[in-house]
Amino acid sequence: MHQDTCPAKVKVAVIGASGYSGEELVKLLLLHPQVDLTALTSRQYEGKSLGEVFPKFANLPGAKELSFIAPDTDKILELAELAFLALPHGVAAEFAAPLCAGGCLVIDLSADFRIHDPVVYKEFYGADHPAPELLEQAVYGLPEWRRDAIKQAKLIASPGCYPTSILLPCLPLIKEDLIQPSTIIANSLSGVSGAGRKADIPYLYVECNESVRPYGVPKHRHLSEIEQEISLAAGCKTVIQFTPHLIPVNRGILTTLTMAPSEKAMANNHAASIIEQVDACLKKAYENEPFVRLLGAKGLPDTKHVVGTNNIEIAFRYDERTGRLIVMSAEDNLVKGASGQAIQSMNILRGFPETTGLML
Amino acid sequence: MHQDTCPAKVKVAVIGASGYSGEELVKLLLLHPQVDLTALTSRQYEGKSLGEVFPKFANLPGAKELSFIAPDTDKILELAELAFLALPHGVAAEFAAPLCAGGCLVIDLSADFRIHDPVVYKEFYGADHPAPELLEQAVYGLPEWRRDAIKQAKLIASPGCYPTSILLPCLPLIKEDLIQPSTIIANSLSGVSGAGRKADIPYLYVECNESVRPYGVPKHRHLSEIEQEISLAAGCKTVIQFTPHLIPVNRGILTTLTMAPSEKAMANNHAASIIEQVDACLKKAYENEPFVRLLGAKGLPDTKHVVGTNNIEIAFRYDERTGRLIVMSAEDNLVKGASGQAIQSMNILRGFPETTGLML
Amino acid sequence: MHQDTCPAKVKVAVIGASGYSGEELVKLLLLHPQVDLTALTSRQYEGKSLGEVFPKFANLPGAKELSFIAPDTDKILELAELAFLALPHGVAAEFAAPLCAGGCLVIDLSADFRIHDPVVYKEFYGADHPAPELLEQAVYGLPEWRRDAIKQAKLIASPGCYPTSILLPCLPLIKEDLIQPSTIIANSLSGVSGAGRKADIPYLYVECNESVRPYGVPKHRHLSEIEQEISLAAGCKTVIQFTPHLIPVNRGILTTLTMAPSEKAMANNHAASIIEQVDACLKKAYENEPFVRLLGAKGLPDTKHVVGTNNIEIAFRYDERTGRLIVMSAEDNLVKGASGQAIQSMNILRGFPETTGLML
Amino acid sequence: MHQDTCPAKVKVAVIGASGYSGEELVKLLLLHPQVDLTALTSRQYEGKSLGEVFPKFANLPGAKELSFIAPDTDKILELAELAFLALPHGVAAEFAAPLCAGGCLVIDLSADFRIHDPVVYKEFYGADHPAPELLEQAVYGLPEWRRDAIKQAKLIASPGCYPTSILLPCLPLIKEDLIQPSTIIANSLSGVSGAGRKADIPYLYVECNESVRPYGVPKHRHLSEIEQEISLAAGCKTVIQFTPHLIPVNRGILTTLTMAPSEKAMANNHAASIIEQVDACLKKAYENEPFVRLLGAKGLPDTKHVVGTNNIEIAFRYDERTGRLIVMSAEDNLVKGASGQAIQSMNILRGFPETTGLML
Repeated sequence: MHQDTCPAKVKVAVIGASGYSGEELVKLLLLHPQVDLTALTSRQYEGKSLGEVFPKFANLPGAKELSFIAPDTDKILELAELAFLALPHGVAAEFAAPLCAGGCLVIDLSADFRIHDPVVYKEFYGADHPAPELLEQAVYGLPEWRRDAIKQAKLIASPGCYPTSILLPCLPLIKEDLIQPSTIIANSLSGVSGAGRKADIPYLYVECNESVRPYGVPKHRHLSEIEQEISLAAGCKTVIQFTPHLIPVNRGILTTLTMAPSEKAMANNHAASIIEQVDACLKKAYENEPFVRLLGAKGLPDTKHVVGTNNIEIAFRYDERTGRLIVMSAEDNLVKGASGQAIQSMNILRGFPETTGLML
Repeated sequence: MHQDTCPAKVKVAVIGASGYSGEELVKLLLLHPQVDLTALTSRQYEGKSLGEVFPKFANLPGAKELSFIAPDTDKILELAELAFLALPHGVAAEFAAPLCAGGCLVIDLSADFRIHDPVVYKEFYGADHPAPELLEQAVYGLPEWRRDAIKQAKLIASPGCYPTSILLPCLPLIKEDLIQPSTIIANSLSGVSGAGRKADIPYLYVECNESVRPYGVPKHRHLSEIEQEISLAAGCKTVIQFTPHLIPVNRGILTTLTMAPSEKAMANNHAASIIEQVDACLKKAYENEPFVRLLGAKGLPDTKHVVGTNNIEIAFRYDERTGRLIVMSAEDNLVKGASGQAIQSMNILRGFPETTGLML
Repeated sequence: MHQDTCPAKVKVAVIGASGYSGEELVKLLLLHPQVDLTALTSRQYEGKSLGEVFPKFANLPGAKELSFIAPDTDKILELAELAFLALPHGVAAEFAAPLCAGGCLVIDLSADFRIHDPVVYKEFYGADHPAPELLEQAVYGLPEWRRDAIKQAKLIASPGCYPTSILLPCLPLIKEDLIQPSTIIANSLSGVSGAGRKADIPYLYVECNESVRPYGVPKHRHLSEIEQEISLAAGCKTVIQFTPHLIPVNRGILTTLTMAPSEKAMANNHAASIIEQVDACLKKAYENEPFVRLLGAKGLPDTKHVVGTNNIEIAFRYDERTGRLIVMSAEDNLVKGASGQAIQSMNILRGFPETTGLML
Repeated sequence: MHQDTCPAKVKVAVIGASGYSGEELVKLLLLHPQVDLTALTSRQYEGKSLGEVFPKFANLPGAKELSFIAPDTDKILELAELAFLALPHGVAAEFAAPLCAGGCLVIDLSADFRIHDPVVYKEFYGADHPAPELLEQAVYGLPEWRRDAIKQAKLIASPGCYPTSILLPCLPLIKEDLIQPSTIIANSLSGVSGAGRKADIPYLYVECNESVRPYGVPKHRHLSEIEQEISLAAGCKTVIQFTPHLIPVNRGILTTLTMAPSEKAMANNHAASIIEQVDACLKKAYENEPFVRLLGAKGLPDTKHVVGTNNIEIAFRYDERTGRLIVMSAEDNLVKGASGQAIQSMNILRGFPETTGLML
C-alpha cells in the first residue's frame, strides 16, 4: 500500500537467516514496502545467493541482488540500521552487544534479552547470561502491551512462540483481576518448525508424522518469560503450569488454558456475569488490535485460520459445572510467534503503520 | 499361538462393521485364534464381500467366505453367540435388547450402556435412554478394573476412547487417595478416526491437515462416563475439566492430566516422597497388566509407540514449583480405546488368555 | 506497490466463492491493489459475512464490508465489470452467457470454455455443451502463450491445474520441434484440494492420509484440453498418456513427463547437444517470464518451493541410457493451476503489470 | 497358527536392527511362531534393551529378554543359524562373508548381493564390490519367481523396495512376451521411511510434509537390479526409465508403469483381446500367490490397503487411445519391499508355510 507521507525505507539485516524463523523473516521483509533488506548472514550459506537457498523467494523484489554473507558485525553496521537476530540463545547476545554499541537497532528473536533477571536466565538456560549489561535497556516486545516502550527501544527482545500464545489471552484477565493467576494451566500444541531446522532424529518426518507427544515437562525454558510477564501483570511472583506438545503440522500453536475466576469476577456468582466480564475485558484490550481476532464465548480457534498470518485467535468458555474458565488461542509460531511479531515491533519502532507488510 | 487346552472357538458377529472401529474389530477378530467371525452387518455394504469393502483384509484367514448382510437380529442370533455392536449411540440399544433377550452375549462399543443413570444419559446425549431396563445388567468394561464383573457379564459397555485414556491413569491415584479428584484437568488430543467414517466437511483431508483445534468445549459427551467412574472411585460425586482437540493423525490419543496431590500424598511435603507414592501406586495397579506400559517419572508417552496395539503408555511428573502432578497417557483410540479393549473383554468373558489375538 | 499511472481499480465479482479455488481467489483479490472486490456469491453462504466463512481473511482490507449474496446475474452486472466463475463445469456456462451478454468480462475457472470443439466436450464431460455459441470467443487463458488474445478477450477459459503443469513444460519443446509429441507420458501427483471442498468419503482425512493412489485412469477429463493445446502446438492431432495420482498434501502438483527427442534434436546424436537445445528452448520461452522458474538440467522441482505462489518450477534431464527426455514441473494447483493464473489473465486484460497482486 | 508337523524353530539374528527395515524385521520376527530371535546387533544401541529402543515391541513375546549387542560375527555364529542383514550396502558384505563361511544362512536386505556383475555394481554403487567371490552363490530373493533357488540358498539377496514394486507387475508380461520391455517407463512414489532413519535435513518433518519431489533422476541405484532382472526375463539386455519421487507418507510405494504391448499381444489389434491376455497372464502368474492381490482392469491400487502387510496390489488398464498399457502396483516399502519379503524367503528356505508370521 502506498503511504503518501511515509517515513524513509529502513535498511535491514537478518543475522542467522537459515532457520525457519529466519526464512519467514526474509520473506516478510522482502515483501515489506518500507524495508530495504541489505544483508543476510549465515555461516552455512555464505556466498550463496538468496534464490539458491530459498528458491521460493527467488522472484521476490530485491531477492536477485541478495547473497548470504558471513556474520561480521562491522559489515552489518555498514549495511544496516536495524538488525534482526534469528540466532540460538547465547549466540544472539554476542552480536547484540557490538551492534547496539555501533548504533544499530536490534530486534532479537532469541531468548537472550527476554529475561530481566540473569539469575532466572541461568536457572532456565543453564549458562551465565552472556551480556547482562544490556538487560536493562532491553524491551520485551509484545506489541499489544508494550507499544510505548517499543517506540523508544534500542534493543527489543521479541517474545517466544509459546509465551505469545499464553500471554496475549491471559494478560488482560490478570490486569483486570478477573482470574487467579496461579491457577493457570497451559497446554500448548506446536508444529514441528518450532524445533528449528536441525538434523536430529526426533524431528525426522517418520518420527513426527502419526505421532503426538509431550516434551519439556514440567519446566520448559519458555516458562521463565511467561512467569516473568504474568508476575508483572499480577503484581506478585507467580508460577504456572505449562505443558508443550509436538504435533505433526509444519506450523501453528494451539494453546488451551484453564484458570479459576477471581473473587471479583465471581462477586455475584452468576455464569452470565462472568462471561460478560471476560468478554468485555478481552474486547477492551483487543477490539482495535489489528492482529487479535476475538472469537468470544461461541467460536473456537483453529490453527489453519491463522497460519501464514500475524493473527492470533482467542476464544473462551466458562464452565458452570467446574467453575473454571477455559481460554484458547491459535497463532502461527513462525509469524505472530516469531518473525511477524518482530516486524510488528519494527513497524512501531520506525513509525510505520503497524500492519505494514503484515496483512497476509 | 497354540493353546493345548483352549476353550472352543466362539462364534462372533460384528454389527455395524463399516466404520473405523468396526473395521479394526473385523481385522482383530479375523486374526484371533479363538474366534469364528460368522456375521458382519452393514446396511450400506449389504451383499458385498469383505474383501471388496476392506481390501486390506481380503487375504486374512476366513475373509474369503465373509460377506456383509443386512442387520437382522434373528439371523445374528442364529449365526453368533457373541455380538459386538459398532453402531452409533441410540441405534446400538435397539440391537442389544433383542440380542440379549435371545441369549447372545453383547459387547457394545457405543455409549448406550456406559451410563448407569438414564437422567445423565439424557443430559449428555439429548434423548431418552432407549433401553433403560438393560442398564442394571450392563458392565462398564474397563478390563483392568472390572475383570470379575466382565467374567459374568451378559452385556458389556466398552468404554469410550477418551475415557480410557483418562480413567486408566487416574483411577489408581484416586482409589489410593493420592490426588484430589475435583482438581483433575484433562487435555486430550485425538486423531481424526475418532470422528468416524462420515462424510462431513470438517473431517475432509484439507480441513484437518495442517490444523489443530479444540472442540466440544466445555461439556463433551464422554464426560458423563468419565465422571461416573471417577465419582465411583472417589466415593463422591465429582466433576472434572476435559478439553478434547482434533489433531492431524489417523489414530492415537494423547492425554495430559494435571491434578493436585491429596493431603495424604503431601503428608511429609517432600517431592521425592510424592513421586515415590505415585510410582508405587501405578506399579501396584498395573505392573502385571499386559497392556499398560508404565514409563514412570522419566519417560514420556508418544502415540507412535502404541498405535496399532492394545497398549496404553502412562508417565507422570511431579512439579515442585507448582505442587501439581502431571500424568500423561497415550493409546490407540481404535484399539485400546475401542476394538482392542472390547476384544480384551471378550477374552476375559470367554476364559481365553487376556492377550489372545492382541499381541500386535 | 504504488503505480503512479496505474489504470483505475476494477470492480470484481467472484461467483461461487465457497470452494478452495474460490477461497484462494478471494484472498488474492482482497490483497490486489487494483481490485475492488464488490460481490461474492454462494448459495450455501448467502447472507453470511466474509469473515464468518473465511476467518483467515477477516482482517484483510475490504473484508469487513463483504457478505455473500445469492448468485443473481442482474445483481452481479450492477456490481461488477469483471467476474470470476469458480463454479462446477456445466453451471459456469449458465452464468457466463448472461454476464457476457451484459458486457461483463468473464474469467471462468471451470472447464466449460476450454474445449473449442463441443463434440470433444461431450466426449469428456458427458453432456452437451451448455453454451456452444460462446465457444468461438473464448480464449484459453494460458498467459505465457496467449497474452495477445487475452488482452482482447471478453471470455477467458482459465486452464486446469494438471494442464498448466503439463503444457508449460511441453509447449516450447513441441513448438521448436525438439520432441515427438505423441511420446509424451505424463504422471501427475496432486494435493487433495484438487478434489474440491466436497463431503465425500474418499476425501476424508483418514482416507487420504497415509495413502497414495492413481485415479481417472486412463482418460481423465483434463486430457481434452491438454491434447487440444498440444495438438495445436504440434500442428496435428496428438494423444498423450496422462495418469493423475492423489497424494496427502493440501496443495501442489508435481508432474513428471517422459518423451522422446525429435529427429531434429537428435541430429548429431550427442547428449550434450540435446541438453543444450532443450535448455536454450526453455530459456527462450521463459527466461523473462515472472512466474516460471527454470531449474535447468541440475535442479529438481519441489512443490514446497511453489505452494502459496503463482510460480511454476521446471527442470529436465536427458537420459543417455534410454534416449529419453524427462521434464518435471511443480506448481500450486490452487494458484498457478487456478486462481493465481486467472488473476494473471485479469492483469493482462486490464493492463496492470502482470505480477500485480501475485508476488507471494 | 499351530503346525502339527512343523519344523523346529529357527534361531535368528538381526544385524543392524536400528533402522526402519530392521525395526520392522524385529517386530515380524518376534511375532513369528517358528522363530527364536536370539541376537540383535547395533553399534549405536549396544547394551540397551529391546524395549528401550523400540517401546512398541516391549510387550511382545520374547522381547523382555532381548538386548542389543555389538556386531560380532563369532558371537552371531554362536547364537544364530540364520542372520538377516539390515545394514548399508558395502557394510553388509563384510558380515556376509564370515557368516556364510561359518555356516550361517544369510538373508541380506542391502544391495550387496543383488547385482550379479561386479562391474555393474561399481557403476551404480561407486565402489568395488566388497565380496565378489560370494556373488555366484547369492540368490536374488524374489519369492514369487525364485522359489526353487531360495529353497537351496545359503545367501539370499532380498530385492529392493522399488524393484519389487516394478518387477512383480512386469515379469509375467515380459516372460509371456506381451509387452516390449524397453518401452517400460516406471514412476514410483515412496514414503519417507525409504530414506532410512538418518538425521539429514531433507528428511526432517518440515522439509517433507506438504512437499513432493522427484529425486535420483535419471539413474537411481535400484535401476541396476531392475534392469538385471528385466533383461533376464526378456532374454536380452534391456534398459528402462525409472523416476522415483518422495511423498509425505511414512510407508508405501505406488508405482505406475506405462509400456507398449508386444506384437504378439497386438496380433488381432483388439483392445478386448489385449486386456484378456494381460489379465490371463497376471492370473496365471499370481492367482495362487498369497501376497499378490490382483485388481484386474477395474480396480486401482492404494497404498493404504497394503501398508502394514506383505501384500502387493496390481491393477492395469489398456488405453485404446494411445495403444499403451498402464500397470500400477502398491506395496509397503518396509514389508513386501524389505522385511516381509525377506521373511517370506526365510519361510521358503526353512520349509515353513510361506505365509507364516506374515498374515498381517
